[in-house]
Amino acid sequence: MATAGKVIKCKAAVAWEAGKPLSIEEVEVAPPQAMEVRVKILYTALCHTDVYFWEAKGQTPVFPRILGHEAGGIVESVGEGVTELVPGDHVLPVFTGECKECAHCKSEESNLCDLLRINVDRGVMIGDGQSRFTVNGKPIFHFVGTSTFSEYTVIHVGCLAKINPEAPLDKVCVLSCGISTGLGATLNVAKPKKGSTVAIFGLGAVGLAAMEGAKMAGASRIIGVDLNPAKYEQAKKFGCTDFVNPKDHTKPVQEVLVEMTNGGVDSAVECTGNINAMISAFECVHDGWGVAVLVGVPHKEAVFKTHPMNFLNEKTLKGTFFGNYKPRTDLPEVVEMYMRKELELEKFITHSVPFSQINTAFDLMLNGEGLRCVMRMGE
Amino acid sequence: MATAGKVIKCKAAVAWEAGKPLSIEEVEVAPPQAMEVRVKILYTALCHTDVYFWEAKGQTPVFPRILGHEAGGIVESVGEGVTELVPGDHVLPVFTGECKECAHCKSEESNLCDLLRINVDRGVMIGDGQSRFTVNGKPIFHFVGTSTFSEYTVIHVGCLAKINPEAPLDKVCVLSCGISTGLGATLNVAKPKKGSTVAIFGLGAVGLAAMEGAKMAGASRIIGVDLNPAKYEQAKKFGCTDFVNPKDHTKPVQEVLVEMTNGGVDSAVECTGNINAMISAFECVHDGWGVAVLVGVPHKEAVFKTHPMNFLNEKTLKGTFFGNYKPRTDLPEVVEMYMRKELELEKFITHSVPFSQINTAFDLMLNGEGLRCVMRMGE
Repeated sequence: MATAGKVIKCKAAVAWEAGKPLSIEEVEVAPPQAMEVRVKILYTALCHTDVYFWEAKGQTPVFPRILGHEAGGIVESVGEGVTELVPGDHVLPVFTGECKECAHCKSEESNLCDLLRINVDRGVMIGDGQSRFTVNGKPIFHFVGTSTFSEYTVIHVGCLAKINPEAPLDKVCVLSCGISTGLGATLNVAKPKKGSTVAIFGLGAVGLAAMEGAKMAGASRIIGVDLNPAKYEQAKKFGCTDFVNPKDHTKPVQEVLVEMTNGGVDSAVECTGNINAMISAFECVHDGWGVAVLVGVPHKEAVFKTHPMNFLNEKTLKGTFFGNYKPRTDLPEVVEMYMRKELELEKFITHSVPFSQINTAFDLMLNGEGLRCVMRMGE
Repeated sequence: MATAGKVIKCKAAVAWEAGKPLSIEEVEVAPPQAMEVRVKILYTALCHTDVYFWEAKGQTPVFPRILGHEAGGIVESVGEGVTELVPGDHVLPVFTGECKECAHCKSEESNLCDLLRINVDRGVMIGDGQSRFTVNGKPIFHFVGTSTFSEYTVIHVGCLAKINPEAPLDKVCVLSCGISTGLGATLNVAKPKKGSTVAIFGLGAVGLAAMEGAKMAGASRIIGVDLNPAKYEQAKKFGCTDFVNPKDHTKPVQEVLVEMTNGGVDSAVECTGNINAMISAFECVHDGWGVAVLVGVPHKEAVFKTHPMNFLNEKTLKGTFFGNYKPRTDLPEVVEMYMRKELELEKFITHSVPFSQINTAFDLMLNGEGLRCVMRMGE
């Protein structure tokens, strides 16, 4: 490519400070260094985690920063030592990586790569501790190694999943984070059996993806749990057969679920991060075989409390990160599930706006409207 | 048999009141009713649970009672409807049952039979709510459906495992409870891989059986954790490669284990019932793939507390009851493991006394001497 090895000037949405609207700027994107790849982003979506670190409440503020981590793009050029990707490859950036060398990557179970595990405080590349972005020469920090709110970005090769070039990037871009997280929590960790009963706590995009996984696995009863009754209607498209609003009951919601299901659900997936919902999700599973899976990220001072007899009664509690998918190894196959029409992504994409209207996407999410807003780069 | 259908008079050890030495009495044992079996006990061992309910501290006192639940015997006669067993069959009584009809029995995972799940407060048969034991016409209560401290006892057919008649009952009787509980916790629930690192909390008979399971599974490093340093020497026979006494460290033992193992053990089995040991056993497993299994029975007011990020970092917490073995379906195969010399039982049996010296067995256990004391009935 003509641009390889050169600085690229392009548009990016810069968060100059916490909570202030993003500003579309012309940024300079340096060429990729060793083990890095420069990617032309075609579509990026907004995820709660972007908003969370933009608000920076209770988080280390890292500004100015280019946020964004759900996206799809095409490799523009590669740095030294990159052999798995070439310019033109279609890729999904992922906020956590897979070095393929560490104990986690070599384990069949783990996706918590030692080298490239998510790091929300680091705003630079791991190779040289520098940023690849500048605005008028002033460095702008990266975000979780992806920074997809830019027409071009530089990403470690271990954080890029090479996918089928026929897959439409405006759809599969949402597999980069939330949808895979929820889907994998159910398919890879809870593993509900055909005909079983599953409870999903929290009916945002991740919870609905977990629900979609339950439907794909053949669960016959899928109970949605959410404090907002308006969520039920939308959830029906994802297989929701019953809805429980904890506010409608005086007793703890786990007791309501146990009564509804004659002893408890076969599996539960918790997608809110609220500690009480986590406890309820565990305690509502059936003794003997029930499995609860925690997905939502808790407050850092939260404490999970339960009576240990719940465990001795053969209930299992697990948690997952990115749905237990190994980004490079497993994500291409999730894309294939979409290509084979086993997984529908369109219903998650409730909005689409030009990249220039990125603050509209933030407003939609802050108002709780829709599930995913995909932004079209270059518009 | 000449005794079928008749009351049998025989010797039994009766606990007349909490904490008082047992008294060998002549008891009358009524014939088995529907779905019941009368068993001639040949060997019985003493387990902590017997001592626990004999002391009756913090438990509902149920006296007078015939305790005992680890044993081996031969079917004397069967009641109406019993088709799976005939007089002469060799059996292991089990304190929890398997009806083969309920949702738990039909589940591949659970052994928590709805009908015959352990009930420590019930002192009568479930069929008619009556005891089958009397002394001079006064009813004596049963214990966990087994009451093996009697030369003859009546047991629900669902609480009897029919085993290979060639198996020596003086050895395999210990598979009736504690040894299977520990062994199954490791083999069926923790499932350590070959070459992995396993921590065992509590080095009594159950913990050592869990350790034996780890050795059988091919674990290469087996860390015993116990407050009594004298336990290490004995534990070496069960595969213990490292020993940690929490009292030797100022930091929490989970941190000691994480440091010793470069990130945590692959699996941990908790066999003490102490709530802090449970928390340590969970927190010492490796992120990404670690599994902790709770076996020890906690205090009824205990609360398990941990930071939920431990789950999100892909650690799993499970519990087990009777090692997840279904008594009738699975226990015969555990006996076969002994017969094939894959499982050594002799090292668990540190003492043997005539049944008439049953109080000696209690003294040994109260003094923490040895692992299992097998009593020879008829002596």
